[in-house]
This record gives sequence, C-alpha cells and structure tokens, in this order.
Amino acid sequence: MPLPKLPTSDLDAKDPLQTSTEYWFTYPFRVYPHHTDYAGIVWHGCYVQWLEEARVECLRSLGISFAELVEVGCDLPVVEMSLRYHQSLTMGMEAVVKVRMFDTGGVRIRCEQKITSPDDGIIYLSGVITLVAIDRDKGKIMRRLPPAVQKVLVRNTEMD
Amino acid sequence: MPLPKLPTSDLDAKDPLQTSTEYWFTYPFRVYPHHTDYAGIVWHGCYVQWLEEARVECLRSLGISFAELVEVGCDLPVVEMSLRYHQSLTMGMEAVVKVRMFDTGGVRIRCEQKITSPDDGIIYLSGVITLVAIDRDKGKIMRRLPPAVQKVLVRNTEMD
Amino acid sequence: MPLPKLPTSDLDAKDPLQTSTEYWFTYPFRVYPHHTDYAGIVWHGCYVQWLEEARVECLRSLGISFAELVEVGCDLPVVEMSLRYHQSLTMGMEAVVKVRMFDTGGVRIRCEQKITSPDDGIIYLSGVITLVAIDRDKGKIMRRLPPAVQKVLVRNTEMD
Amino acid sequence: MPLPKLPTSDLDAKDPLQTSTEYWFTYPFRVYPHHTDYAGIVWHGCYVQWLEEARVECLRSLGISFAELVEVGCDLPVVEMSLRYHQSLTMGMEAVVKVRMFDTGGVRIRCEQKITSPDDGIIYLSGVITLVAIDRDKGKIMRRLPPAVQKVLVRNTEMD
Repeated sequence: MPLPKLPTSDLDAKDPLQTSTEYWFTYPFRVYPHHTDYAGIVWHGCYVQWLEEARVECLRSLGISFAELVEVGCDLPVVEMSLRYHQSLTMGMEAVVKVRMFDTGGVRIRCEQKITSPDDGIIYLSGVITLVAIDRDKGKIMRRLPPAVQKVLVRNTEMD
Repeated sequence: MPLPKLPTSDLDAKDPLQTSTEYWFTYPFRVYPHHTDYAGIVWHGCYVQWLEEARVECLRSLGISFAELVEVGCDLPVVEMSLRYHQSLTMGMEAVVKVRMFDTGGVRIRCEQKITSPDDGIIYLSGVITLVAIDRDKGKIMRRLPPAVQKVLVRNTEMD
Repeated sequence: MPLPKLPTSDLDAKDPLQTSTEYWFTYPFRVYPHHTDYAGIVWHGCYVQWLEEARVECLRSLGISFAELVEVGCDLPVVEMSLRYHQSLTMGMEAVVKVRMFDTGGVRIRCEQKITSPDDGIIYLSGVITLVAIDRDKGKIMRRLPPAVQKVLVRNTEMD
Repeated sequence: MPLPKLPTSDLDAKDPLQTSTEYWFTYPFRVYPHHTDYAGIVWHGCYVQWLEEARVECLRSLGISFAELVEVGCDLPVVEMSLRYHQSLTMGMEAVVKVRMFDTGGVRIRCEQKITSPDDGIIYLSGVITLVAIDRDKGKIMRRLPPAVQKVLVRNTEMD
C-alpha cells in the first residue's frame, strides 16, 4: 500500500527546486524487489543510492569520471543531506532522478535533486545534498574545487 | 583515510541538539566491512540503517514493538530527513546512535539523532528525522498519533 | 586493487554454465560508489542485487511482470544460491549479468547466472539460484509453477 | 507472511553441518525494517551481511582484528558462497548466526555457517562460505594463510 500524498502545499511554496530555470540532468531507474520493505514500498534509505548514481552520471555527462577523480586523489564525500519524501514508489515502478550541481564559490558542491515520474507529473522525493572536495593524500579539505570540476559546474556564489 | 573534521563551529552554535536536556536513548553498533566504501570509510547512506535501528530500539525501550505496531495497522514512515556528516567512521570502529523522540502535537514524530564515539567525545553525524503516523488499511495519514505512541513520547508542541 | 584471478581451471571444467547452448538473457549495469567496499572492489553481497534485477528483467522480456505476479498471489523466493567469485569489479566499471531460467519439472525454477565484461571476455561471477513458487494467501509451496510462468520457461526435467 | 518451511528432510540428511562436533561461534542479531522486503520477510541478500558480521566477530573472539589484518596488508575476500534458505525471518525477530572456520591446509578458509532461532530449535539458513588470503600490496593470492590466522583455526585438510 503506497504512502499517501502528504499535504506539502506550503512547504512546496518555499521549495527552491521549483523556482530555478537551470538544466536538470535526468537519470532513469526502476524499483526492484531488493529496494522494497515490509510495507511494499521503497525503503527510505534506498533512495540515497539512486541519488548518488544520478550525481555520478551527471558528472560523467559533463566529462568527469568519478572513478578517475578518486584515482588522482580527489574525493567528494557528502557532508550534508536533506530529503523530503513526498510520495512512495512501489515495486516495478519506473522513475527518474533529476539533479543540478552548483559550484557555490568555495570548496562545496550543492546538488539539488528530485525524484519524479518519467513524465514529471508526480514528485516522489526532493532534496539538497552538499559535497566537499577532499585531498585524499593529505586527508584534508581542499582550498578550492579541482579545476576540472570547477570548469563544468554552474557557479552560484549566493548559495553557499 | 578518514574524512577530516569539518569546520562546523558556527553550524554547531545553532544546532538544536546541543541545547536540550532531555534524555537520549543510546544504541551501540560496530562498523563491518559491508558498511565501508572505496574510501575505507562508512558509505554515507549506511548511517540511515543505524538511525532506523536506534529509533526502533528506542520505541522498544518505551514499551512499543514496532513490528506489532505495523501488524495492528499503523506505520511510521520517514517524511523528512536532514543529516550532517561531521567526521567519518572506519572499519572495526565502535560507536553509538543517540536518539530523542518528540510528539510535536500533531501526527508527526520529531526524532533528533546523533552518532558519537562511545565516550561521547567525537560526533560523527547529527540529524533530524520526521516520522508521520499512517493508517495502513485506509492508506491515509492518521488524525493523531496512536494513543500507545502518544503516551510514551515527550510532548513539545513548539517543534512542529 | 582488484582481486587476482583465481586458479579455477579445474572448477571451470565441471561448470555446467559452459556446456549449455541455450539463450542467455543479458542485463547491463555499472558499479557505483555505494557498491564498493574498503578494498575498492564490489562488496561480495552486492552482486546478489544485480542477479535479482537480471532475473526480474529476464521474466519481463518473457512477458511476465514480477510485480503483477506478486500482486495476484504468487511469490518466487530464493531457496538456494551458490556463487563463485572469479574476479572483482571496481568502481566505474560496466558489466553484464547473464541469466537462463529453467522449469525443472516441479515447482522450482533453476536460474543459471554469470556476470561478465560487456564483450564476454572476462567472467567475474558465476552461480546457480533456485526459486520456488509460493502461494502467498495460503503461505504454502504451490503444487506446480503458475501456468503463465511454466509457459515461457525452457523445460529441462533432468535438472531437478 | 512467512515463507513456508521447505521439505528439506533428505537434504538435511546429507548436510555436513549436522554431523560435526566442533565448536560453533554464536553471533546474535535482530531483524529491522530495512532488512525486510515487500513480502514482509528478510530479503535473501540481507543474510549475507549477518554472515560476514559473524565471521568478523568469530575472528575477534580468536584474537584477530579483521580491520588490523587488512591494515597490515592481508585481505580475506569471499571466493565461494553456497546458501540454502530453509525458513524466513520476519521483522522484529531475534536470531543467531553460528559459524565454524577451518584451515583446509592451503590458502583457503572454509566457513560453515547457519542461522537459527536463539534456542537453536529452528534453522533459517545454512551455508558454506570460502575465503582466500590475498596479499593486498602484490594483488596476489598468498602461498599460505598468515601465521596469526593459521594459528587460531582448526585444521582439517580433508575439506579442501
């Protein structure tokens, strides 16, 4: 039985995801048995996997291989994650993750993400995930984003 | 190599987790190989499992079996989750989840959670998770929390 | 660092996967950060997810929606699973799951599966997974496979 | 609804797990929501996590820290895993993993494992998992088990 739609009308009003006109990268996926829980819907922690897969593919679409980035010594761990669950996905359903990534002017990347039906008619999840660039050898936060990453991201310094 | 400690000093200043004096329920756990990722640290999505386990055990400590609650027709899905990752856990480490659950006066439960070292000296993660009570048969949000749940939670209507 | 290739030459000699000429259904996937462990390779339990996804898609290619099958009261739980890990996958790699499903004449489905490089040159994993048909209402094993399933599977009664 | 007990009587007869008298290490656990699937039972891949946790704790009980073993350059990846699912666990249930680990005279460790009810009356899963010792720096299989590991394991060269 699906989770009923939540009365989020006034939450939506202040949702930054609705107002920007930047490009959304789209990553399609399908719900398999291992994603579901006793309630017959996707377990809330499973969405985190699809969000990550979409970010990796978004970077790839911009010419950046995440595996190579790690190999040359830069990692991009998640330091903040805020998610709202609007409606639940059930076994067999198809959906898409949408993602936009911003360079906020420092060493952080702000990722706005949502999960919707393929036709964009239903929103299942929305959220903001913040990554930070780490120098793997030194074990320290970098001073700025790696040039290769900085070059491809939309810059929006008002977001930091 | 562990994720370096983030400069969260001013974030911590406004952290609601630091100011309350309510009781924290404590749930210990250990990091196993399957929790780690290529960076040798716990993958960021894995923490969600321990947070859930701690909430279930917190309810059990208050006399509520989550499995029975579901069986009698009430579910408590997550509708919002905001997490901050302060420092990373590595393989073999022991840590504890701390959780406090509040009845905010409506049909929502506000769970304040953090993950710390057993001696409370290091904070790895802090977050707020919001649950809502669902009538499984009707597939609808309940009007209020089930009496058994309402009875055992600290009430704080200023949190809603 | 990848797991070295194991000396499985004599194991391979008795591997039933090598000798049949039946059609293999192919399901492509990619390795994301959440699949990896501290060793930088796919954690051994993660392969189980891709094996399941491939079986579900194999059934779909034969006209059977697994979600609908469950909805009408039939489930196909795994009752046996034997896997051999030949070589390891690392982050960012692409691979394919191959699967063949047989009706063994009773109520069991025998699934032969392997994971290979897209060009079939490297074998990462091989295994046999056995499913059994369950009547969800009665909570009992069915007497025979549902007709819709029986109709589409290759029958090989010597496998039981 | 739980998976019905399978008619494994004659399978059990040839089950090597029943006939040995060696010591079983015991690791208790509980089923949480994130372990369950749409059928209300533990998803078949989840058992792999508990099996691993029990092996790590078994080694710890013998004086070996798995995290330290990895740090000094030895890894013990799974190269074979054969599992039989006898009966299903449901949300909230408590169970124990039992494990015995044998040095088979070469570079492999044979782990016999089962999952039972705490009172040992019900068997949920039985299986055999084979590990192999890897030199992490060279990326190669070792010639023999590390002395520290070899010293603590029961030796049974007829198992290889």
